[in-house]
Amino acid sequence: MADTSSHGSPPPPLKDELDIVIPTIRNLDFLEMWRPFFQPYHLIIVQDGDPTKTIKVPPGFDYDLYNRNDINKLLGPRASCISFKDSACRCFGYMVSKKKYIYTIDDDCFVANDPSGLPINALEQHIKNLLCPSTPYFFNTLYDPFREGADYVRGYPFSLREGVPTAVSHGLWLNIPDYDAPTQLVKPLERNTRYVDAVLTIPKGTLFPMCGMNLAFDRDLIGPAMYFGLMGEGQPIGRYDDMWAGWCCKVITDHLGLGIKTGLPYIYHSKASNPFVNLRKEYKGIFWQEDIIPFFQNVVLPKECTTVQKCYIELSKQVKEKLSKVDPYFDKLADAMVTWIEAWDELNPSGASKGKA
Amino acid sequence: MADTSSHGSPPPPLKDELDIVIPTIRNLDFLEMWRPFFQPYHLIIVQDGDPTKTIKVPPGFDYDLYNRNDINKLLGPRASCISFKDSACRCFGYMVSKKKYIYTIDDDCFVANDPSGLPINALEQHIKNLLCPSTPYFFNTLYDPFREGADYVRGYPFSLREGVPTAVSHGLWLNIPDYDAPTQLVKPLERNTRYVDAVLTIPKGTLFPMCGMNLAFDRDLIGPAMYFGLMGEGQPIGRYDDMWAGWCCKVITDHLGLGIKTGLPYIYHSKASNPFVNLRKEYKGIFWQEDIIPFFQNVVLPKECTTVQKCYIELSKQVKEKLSKVDPYFDKLADAMVTWIEAWDELNPSGASKGKA
Repeated sequence: MADTSSHGSPPPPLKDELDIVIPTIRNLDFLEMWRPFFQPYHLIIVQDGDPTKTIKVPPGFDYDLYNRNDINKLLGPRASCISFKDSACRCFGYMVSKKKYIYTIDDDCFVANDPSGLPINALEQHIKNLLCPSTPYFFNTLYDPFREGADYVRGYPFSLREGVPTAVSHGLWLNIPDYDAPTQLVKPLERNTRYVDAVLTIPKGTLFPMCGMNLAFDRDLIGPAMYFGLMGEGQPIGRYDDMWAGWCCKVITDHLGLGIKTGLPYIYHSKASNPFVNLRKEYKGIFWQEDIIPFFQNVVLPKECTTVQKCYIELSKQVKEKLSKVDPYFDKLADAMVTWIEAWDELNPSGASKGKA
Repeated sequence: MADTSSHGSPPPPLKDELDIVIPTIRNLDFLEMWRPFFQPYHLIIVQDGDPTKTIKVPPGFDYDLYNRNDINKLLGPRASCISFKDSACRCFGYMVSKKKYIYTIDDDCFVANDPSGLPINALEQHIKNLLCPSTPYFFNTLYDPFREGADYVRGYPFSLREGVPTAVSHGLWLNIPDYDAPTQLVKPLERNTRYVDAVLTIPKGTLFPMCGMNLAFDRDLIGPAMYFGLMGEGQPIGRYDDMWAGWCCKVITDHLGLGIKTGLPYIYHSKASNPFVNLRKEYKGIFWQEDIIPFFQNVVLPKECTTVQKCYIELSKQVKEKLSKVDPYFDKLADAMVTWIEAWDELNPSGASKGKA
């Protein structure tokens, strides 16, 4: 671990409590730009694709790299639940981490500037988001009441002002927006240039599209639900990994009385992926989501589900029961959800026995 | 009506379809600053307090002014539903308007500047908000997908992208935030300096604190629910007029499949009201809202309620049934809600017969 005091910045928070998870198939040159912000932290690199390829990591970073051989060795037959040739493989990193917090970022995401031109320390903002409460039960019109210079407005019930623990912090993207293939095709030149200076809680009962590009979460609170599904090689679908995780996490956080925030921080997303390739990966998802969303909107978890694991197993049952008729894929996915929890509990035995939630 | 072409700006939209409603007890000098934006529109001034007092309106504005004598003359015994010595009296202006859209603003609100220093045409932004759809059924992480440079993100169901008609546009305030008395007392120096460049739909099923300072709505879609209740002289409570209207409007728009947006535009709120006076007005409300919020969170309107009027009458019954036990005030309020609808329908006979909703 490098000494960061030479950077002249205050010591980074949660230095020993947070891992950065990066899925990749290439050399991690993008880390150079993040060095002042990421170097104090441990990185978990999940190498996708050909495991014989060497991934170069810039010097000075503290990291563990796992390729497909490592995943197979660690999980044995349960490795089937980890996607191959898709960035969904990143969730393996969540599982092997031993830290309380995870930040995950794509390797085509760079440091964005705020409107005054200063580089944005995305990780610092995520940590702020995770360390202060969420407010899912009533909307605050001045956004996050815990930010400096803000508070609850007139008419906000006092009994709700304590808030609830924040499980997920969903960050956004300047430049290339996270559009689906049809929108990319229709608006190839659209760029997101609007810096919205807000963090807000997604209200209870409301679903949202969670993007895995720039995402942080509390592993103790929600980790076992952060499964990115079956995508990529051998699967009929891609680019729904983070969406799936987001919908599962949202119904489980709602059930357990936890919060999800979205908004700041921004990263700079450099390169639009190929919309034709994306369309091939997405097109089944575009149909299926018309059934998936009503399914999640109507999920009810019984009150016996008091841990994330119990909620997730129950959810897998409901997926099998209600979504298998949409496509046999969901039958496989429901099984993989169970395998994921078994693997999680094997690698995190104390968490399993304590029934962390 | 003045010729505004001399201002060099494009012709104001909805010139003949929008009234500006201003409750006041003083000369309307604040209109000078708003002249370039408001002068093309018709103003409805609701004079509160002593009706013998003369309110001066700067020259060049097209307006009707109603004082208490006018209200009593027009409504007869039903005038009892219009508050006295409280800005809640503004809702009388909504009732006598014959236009499709209403914008209402407090007389201590001035033109704010955007971050580039340009004056904000609040009315223009409200009109934009009202004329494009809302998205209450699923959260879009890039906020209003209908704004220039934005769209629906990946994972947003295509079947929901048409949106629903927008009934209410709730604008915000720079400088003095809309805090309750306890927060004012604790943070007397706090000022809102954060310009959040966003408009967003309050999701279905989520309540919010609606402030009447800077508010626009579609009278045809939601007008009869925009009743500001019984406040001020002879009542045990004040400063909950807009909150009450907001909670009623939210459950009714949710039921009827309409949307409510919040965010832009900002106005500059110049003067904090006296927190000691506010505490006296609010303190019962601070207790009561702990019962009022669960009440509204659990309101179910039967499907026979297909118009705003029917919804509102049904709501008045539930208020009487469920909230009267909190305080006898709610029994009176429930009766006033019925009187309000009777008065509305009398003054807006075609709306009543058409069952406008």
